[in-house]
Amino acid sequence: MPGTVWGLGVGPGDPELITVKALRLMQAAPVVAYPAPLGGESFARGIVRQWLDRGQQEIVIEVPMETAPEPAQAAYDRAADRIAAELEAGRDVAVLCQGDPFFYGSFMYLFGRLAARFKVEIVPGVSSLTASAAALQAPLAARNDVLAVLPGPLPEEELARRLEDVDAAAIIKLGRHFAKVRRVLDRLGLLDKAHYVERATLGNQRLRPLAEVEPVEVPYFSMILVHKRGEAWR
Amino acid sequence: MPGTVWGLGVGPGDPELITVKALRLMQAAPVVAYPAPLGGESFARGIVRQWLDRGQQEIVIEVPMETAPEPAQAAYDRAADRIAAELEAGRDVAVLCQGDPFFYGSFMYLFGRLAARFKVEIVPGVSSLTASAAALQAPLAARNDVLAVLPGPLPEEELARRLEDVDAAAIIKLGRHFAKVRRVLDRLGLLDKAHYVERATLGNQRLRPLAEVEPVEVPYFSMILVHKRGEAWR
Repeated sequence: MPGTVWGLGVGPGDPELITVKALRLMQAAPVVAYPAPLGGESFARGIVRQWLDRGQQEIVIEVPMETAPEPAQAAYDRAADRIAAELEAGRDVAVLCQGDPFFYGSFMYLFGRLAARFKVEIVPGVSSLTASAAALQAPLAARNDVLAVLPGPLPEEELARRLEDVDAAAIIKLGRHFAKVRRVLDRLGLLDKAHYVERATLGNQRLRPLAEVEPVEVPYFSMILVHKRGEAWR
Repeated sequence: MPGTVWGLGVGPGDPELITVKALRLMQAAPVVAYPAPLGGESFARGIVRQWLDRGQQEIVIEVPMETAPEPAQAAYDRAADRIAAELEAGRDVAVLCQGDPFFYGSFMYLFGRLAARFKVEIVPGVSSLTASAAALQAPLAARNDVLAVLPGPLPEEELARRLEDVDAAAIIKLGRHFAKVRRVLDRLGLLDKAHYVERATLGNQRLRPLAEVEPVEVPYFSMILVHKRGEAWR
């Protein structure tokens, strides 16, 4: 019997935001795999490190981050091969996914390579989307609101058009796109309905008024939430 | 010192999908509150009932479900008053929220009534959005996808226009709107990119091809996920 791949959402950063289920399955798995930047620390492993001292085998999926997609695809090919070898030997492999495995996560690259040949089970996790809303004390959406998730790399005109057309939006993957996104929000008169958070739920979480954010300092793990009824919640 | 309101996401239904943090805070709170339909069982309380035998005081927020909003607003007024009385007496109150407190949840009605006067802390939870994706083994979104969350009650033409304009969508609050939504997906040629799940992560979870779903049997807790690159994941 080949093993099962467990895609485990470990949550947005606060170690306690892992689910009881993901924690149990991670600790029961003989092999744990996780992505890490080349030569760097794994964010997903960092989240759960206090629960990982059980002598499990670890597979580091070394991925060149935020570069051209080709080298990353080769890295996922190699990782899928290593994971497949464990599965064929009958061992389950828990793949740690920051946030949720299927919400803009890199797990789908492994899923695409393994799901046709092996049993894959997904354990959903707390995503950065709801974690950011909680940190900002800003409801994402309610009633019959239309909510859009918009990646920061979208072109300026497209961001503007889409923001005009929804009740609420989460703008993700900000990083070096922050200045453009702020310009769009300003143009649409939405600055006072928009809230910025970086590294939500981590120890170095930071909430800042958009006007005070230095664009060069915006990390990849940041988000802007917009709700046009904004202050109506309080 | 007045108490704190904890808005605790308890996840989509599987009791093990509560976070370690929400479980700890719930068990530490002297008072636990949760919504329930008039004269019925609370879904949120049902999720966590195995961890609730500690003699905590319980406040049932009896809400007339899926009716005109007015009686519900009066019910939230009464619930906010009862919770405020506990807070003023120095007791923390944990409010149980199915899924995530700020993702289309009823918690925002209490948040709106209490946040100006009391300390409110939100613990994000696994939402039905990512739980449904996990159940369907269907990634929600990746890379620079635009993802929309669309409530089923939206008018047919608006649903069609919005579905045409995104890479991926989650259509929530289906219930009696299922037939309309399926008609729209059919018209747009998206039926084979759309997947239906009801009661994701619960014991009676059901995945069905859209063509086989009986519209009169579709519960409120159901969802359709659409991704236009659909089968490209596998």
